[in-house]
Amino acid sequence: MSDALPPLAPELQVSRWYNTAQPITLRSLRGRVVLLHAFQMLCPACISHGLPQARRVHELFPREQVVVIGLHTVFEHHAVMGPDALAALIHEYRWPFPIGIDMPGSDGDGVPRTMRELALQGTPSALLLDRGGRVRLHHFGATDDMALGAMIGQLLAEAPTAALAASDMAKSRAGDHSVRADCDGGGCVAR
Amino acid sequence: MSDALPPLAPELQVSRWYNTAQPITLRSLRGRVVLLHAFQMLCPACISHGLPQARRVHELFPREQVVVIGLHTVFEHHAVMGPDALAALIHEYRWPFPIGIDMPGSDGDGVPRTMRELALQGTPSALLLDRGGRVRLHHFGATDDMALGAMIGQLLAEAPTAALAASDMAKSRAGDHSVRADCDGGGCVAR
Amino acid sequence: MSDALPPLAPELQVSRWYNTAQPITLRSLRGRVVLLHAFQMLCPACISHGLPQARRVHELFPREQVVVIGLHTVFEHHAVMGPDALAALIHEYRWPFPIGIDMPGSDGDGVPRTMRELALQGTPSALLLDRGGRVRLHHFGATDDMALGAMIGQLLAEAPTAALAASDMAKSRAGDHSVRADCDGGGCVAR
Amino acid sequence: MSDALPPLAPELQVSRWYNTAQPITLRSLRGRVVLLHAFQMLCPACISHGLPQARRVHELFPREQVVVIGLHTVFEHHAVMGPDALAALIHEYRWPFPIGIDMPGSDGDGVPRTMRELALQGTPSALLLDRGGRVRLHHFGATDDMALGAMIGQLLAEAPTAALAASDMAKSRAGDHSVRADCDGGGCVAR
Repeated sequence: MSDALPPLAPELQVSRWYNTAQPITLRSLRGRVVLLHAFQMLCPACISHGLPQARRVHELFPREQVVVIGLHTVFEHHAVMGPDALAALIHEYRWPFPIGIDMPGSDGDGVPRTMRELALQGTPSALLLDRGGRVRLHHFGATDDMALGAMIGQLLAEAPTAALAASDMAKSRAGDHSVRADCDGGGCVAR
Repeated sequence: MSDALPPLAPELQVSRWYNTAQPITLRSLRGRVVLLHAFQMLCPACISHGLPQARRVHELFPREQVVVIGLHTVFEHHAVMGPDALAALIHEYRWPFPIGIDMPGSDGDGVPRTMRELALQGTPSALLLDRGGRVRLHHFGATDDMALGAMIGQLLAEAPTAALAASDMAKSRAGDHSVRADCDGGGCVAR
Repeated sequence: MSDALPPLAPELQVSRWYNTAQPITLRSLRGRVVLLHAFQMLCPACISHGLPQARRVHELFPREQVVVIGLHTVFEHHAVMGPDALAALIHEYRWPFPIGIDMPGSDGDGVPRTMRELALQGTPSALLLDRGGRVRLHHFGATDDMALGAMIGQLLAEAPTAALAASDMAKSRAGDHSVRADCDGGGCVAR
Repeated sequence: MSDALPPLAPELQVSRWYNTAQPITLRSLRGRVVLLHAFQMLCPACISHGLPQARRVHELFPREQVVVIGLHTVFEHHAVMGPDALAALIHEYRWPFPIGIDMPGSDGDGVPRTMRELALQGTPSALLLDRGGRVRLHHFGATDDMALGAMIGQLLAEAPTAALAASDMAKSRAGDHSVRADCDGGGCVAR
């Protein structure tokens, strides 16, 4: 790892929020650890693994320490994954954490804006931001609960201005335990 | 059990088929056992349990003996569970068996026609038809694999004109092992 | 399949019974379907898969139709899998069905008698006997619940003197869905 | 939490070691995080949950940071859970981490010594020691992977002399997500 600080996460660009009375900015969450879960409602690994895992994080840690945000990053099948379809999904599955719709890209039909700025490869993707808003995990595909828990634990133990080296070990290992997404490459990897 | 035969399943009323070159009629399947799996694409227990179980049945038994048919019986959220949304779901999950869209009811927005004629309570529902086309299992909610396998095995052992008593035991017990659907009553039970 | 009948299962040779007031003979069970589950208490796949599946069979089907019997076929680590150790296992796991200890072979330290007469390859092994006492499934390794349920269902549908062809299909397919035993070959395969 | 430091773990009292060329002392592990997993080989929740979880910890984290030690704390069925029986278990399940047999108590037949000094309630029990050898988690029953991972992550982020407050949150919450042990109270709780 270089001496450079990890990058600050760019601000969310969200066209509509669910499960929150107010729009949420990453800036307002400084001081807390943030799990940003990027998903698509028709992505099988998101439904079977990513969103349930996000729910477990939401339930395990105190809200004033760890915040979970879902980000609906639609880059395919746009016509059938619109706001009303997402609302029905959230209702049926009772996802309890705030979920935002990533704002469409300028072409209106490709990769949405936050997804592009975060350089996500596809869905599901999990990003962990430290208390200072910096991206400390950037992972495409599924991560196992123990590895994700370990990284959150390390970030919780840091002061907002802490040296960042402590989490590097877990970060470098998280990928070793990834579960292959069971959707096909053409389906859930952003081109 | 009375001396009366179980009822013949009414014919499917399907507006569009997927995964089959030709429309399918129950009549054409006489001589085989049929698993009819009624689902909605936004019903959590259908996605997590019912459809994967239907896939296992499809893979376990020879096609010339057991046929699996999915029936998309939309009775809620009609606007976001249309033909294109279903097509995207089938594509992403790679459901391999024929799936038909149950024809909308006369009011256009309530319980669809086959669902009404079959008197289904909601989704997921599993129906087993014997080689003679008669309804031998009619189950709302999840059934465990062993109980479903036992019923299919009993139906396979019958000649098309066999006496029907043999499967009654398993039929009466299948309900004991139901898993509660994890969607809420208001969501997946047809009113 | 030839025209020859499947073989009658040889009688159990058991040195001690648990969970039954009376010794059990296969002959006394004619008229019922019998699942004979051969296991060793230190065989990982027996503990994680075979015995829990035997419990599910025991719980799903009526006792007057299907009988589950466990057979402790110790062919290794004899010194630490004796009657008292087995008693403690049964107590801790609360296995609810009758379990017998297979009688030691003449050499006292190798493959036990019933195991040898049944020509079992190792543990776990599942045998299904039809109502006439004939061996209709003889499977080493794990079988999935749906395939096992289908075979039991077919055997239940037969009269004791029924033609046997009906179950051949499921029998021939059960092996396709075997789960690899997670103990090593040297550990749980009888030499 | 009081201002008092958590207690130093008492040294292990082990009569025989497996999977290690040298006896292991907790003192020699200072500087690393230690997961001490207390189990009995006939305790169902140990076999199905605790030991597999210990294996996952062993595989996820680098050995120079996190050390996993199994401790066979036999307090019942002593006659059938001796050293040879344990050796056979370790061989069959291929548990990869060091395992020690807790030294019998002075009465020879009750709660063993380390278990008594650690005041364990029963099996499975998980203890986490920080880099300074202090007991930071002391949990009877199953813990979920995410909660355990979070605690390990927090301990990894601490310097050996760090203030201890950081992990209190996760510690206090781990219990909320315990899985009930599936053995009976009389079986696996030490009296």
